[in-house]
Amino acid sequence: EDARELADRLGIGFVVAPIGPARAGIGQTLDGVFGSLGERRLGERLPDLADENLQSRLRGSMIMAVSNRTGAIVLTTGNKSELAVGYCTLYGDMNGGLAVLSDVPKTRVYALSRWINAHAGEAGFGGPPIPERTITKPPSAELAPDQKDSDSLPEYDVLDEIVDRFVERRQSPARIVAETGFDDETVRRICRLIDRNEYKRRQMATGLKVTHVAFGPGRRMPIARGEFDPVFTPES
Amino acid sequence: EDARELADRLGIGFVVAPIGPARAGIGQTLDGVFGSLGERRLGERLPDLADENLQSRLRGSMIMAVSNRTGAIVLTTGNKSELAVGYCTLYGDMNGGLAVLSDVPKTRVYALSRWINAHAGEAGFGGPPIPERTITKPPSAELAPDQKDSDSLPEYDVLDEIVDRFVERRQSPARIVAETGFDDETVRRICRLIDRNEYKRRQMATGLKVTHVAFGPGRRMPIARGEFDPVFTPES
Repeated sequence: EDARELADRLGIGFVVAPIGPARAGIGQTLDGVFGSLGERRLGERLPDLADENLQSRLRGSMIMAVSNRTGAIVLTTGNKSELAVGYCTLYGDMNGGLAVLSDVPKTRVYALSRWINAHAGEAGFGGPPIPERTITKPPSAELAPDQKDSDSLPEYDVLDEIVDRFVERRQSPARIVAETGFDDETVRRICRLIDRNEYKRRQMATGLKVTHVAFGPGRRMPIARGEFDPVFTPES
Repeated sequence: EDARELADRLGIGFVVAPIGPARAGIGQTLDGVFGSLGERRLGERLPDLADENLQSRLRGSMIMAVSNRTGAIVLTTGNKSELAVGYCTLYGDMNGGLAVLSDVPKTRVYALSRWINAHAGEAGFGGPPIPERTITKPPSAELAPDQKDSDSLPEYDVLDEIVDRFVERRQSPARIVAETGFDDETVRRICRLIDRNEYKRRQMATGLKVTHVAFGPGRRMPIARGEFDPVFTPES
């Protein structure tokens, strides 16, 4: 409902495309494949990464079909925080011709949203264009029941601070822990996620550069290396 | 049948996954979306790029689901000739963790296949592992009835010569025409396709480097520029 409300306020066309029939159709074939591989059926047990990714990929394929038919470009909406830790689906919500927010951390997305709402009049809007609930509700990928980003990730103010220090300022996990007082295990886990998800970012749509170090040409790291390799980690 | 024969000869597991049910399921939703956008239904008229890409993307999503469940890496099988001119589907057959043939032109794929068959004994095979028909039948993306690659592309010996000269030797279209005697319009069309499809290659899986100039880190070209921009085209 928040997306529809936003589209209404901005005067953007809005179409609802349920993925139920698509998932049922592909599930029929996949269950046959899984069966012959000795794997369990789709949706038999939750949570399941294959099923979550599949939902995202079916949406991505539908959006690309609309793009093919209409010639409209698909905008990738993933932000820098998500792309940093791989909280996104390759060939799913990562589909698109331009990644608009790929260099904008989630906390800055919120700050920008509040700024836009506060300056709505100057841009000719009658009221704040972004529904308040979009800014205040708990972030969720909405791929499993009651799923919240904070189930798998620290709060975004913590996550963004780690991303900023590790990616943009090239600080080591040890230094981040020392300077922030964040939990050592959390910092190392996030830095490991950032390193491990380089392969996803290699295949992401071209993004806009906003910070000092954007993913893409701004930060290229080898994919097949050990974690925290001293050759590539600037500080120890 | 050729794929099954190849798997049999190599002792590789083989699973058949028809995309009919998947396409029917997603088509039901898409037709609703197309309807509200004033577009025709899926498959109403042929050939249709949206439908061809959708088939490839449904296959790609199924293969990724198998990868998610089993932990097996998906190998992207597209060759350099296809990737050069964009004869491949982003988020479809381009899916994968490693693009094995991304730097091997199609004519070299054939040459390698013949070499492997000729040297089968040395590798411990009882006979040629690659079915002869795989090498001799007309190449096809098999996304539309009776579709052949030569419907949209020149023969691969011509295409590969153009790719080699334009990409690897950085020759201009004019020089390629002068030195090869190929049709001027064909050469310019292929070079234009190579330029235009840079956006697809930006999102391709990491590939193995075989020639002097591989796509990926070996050849990075700006995406949003005019065609044959003198700044980026080395010869005029």
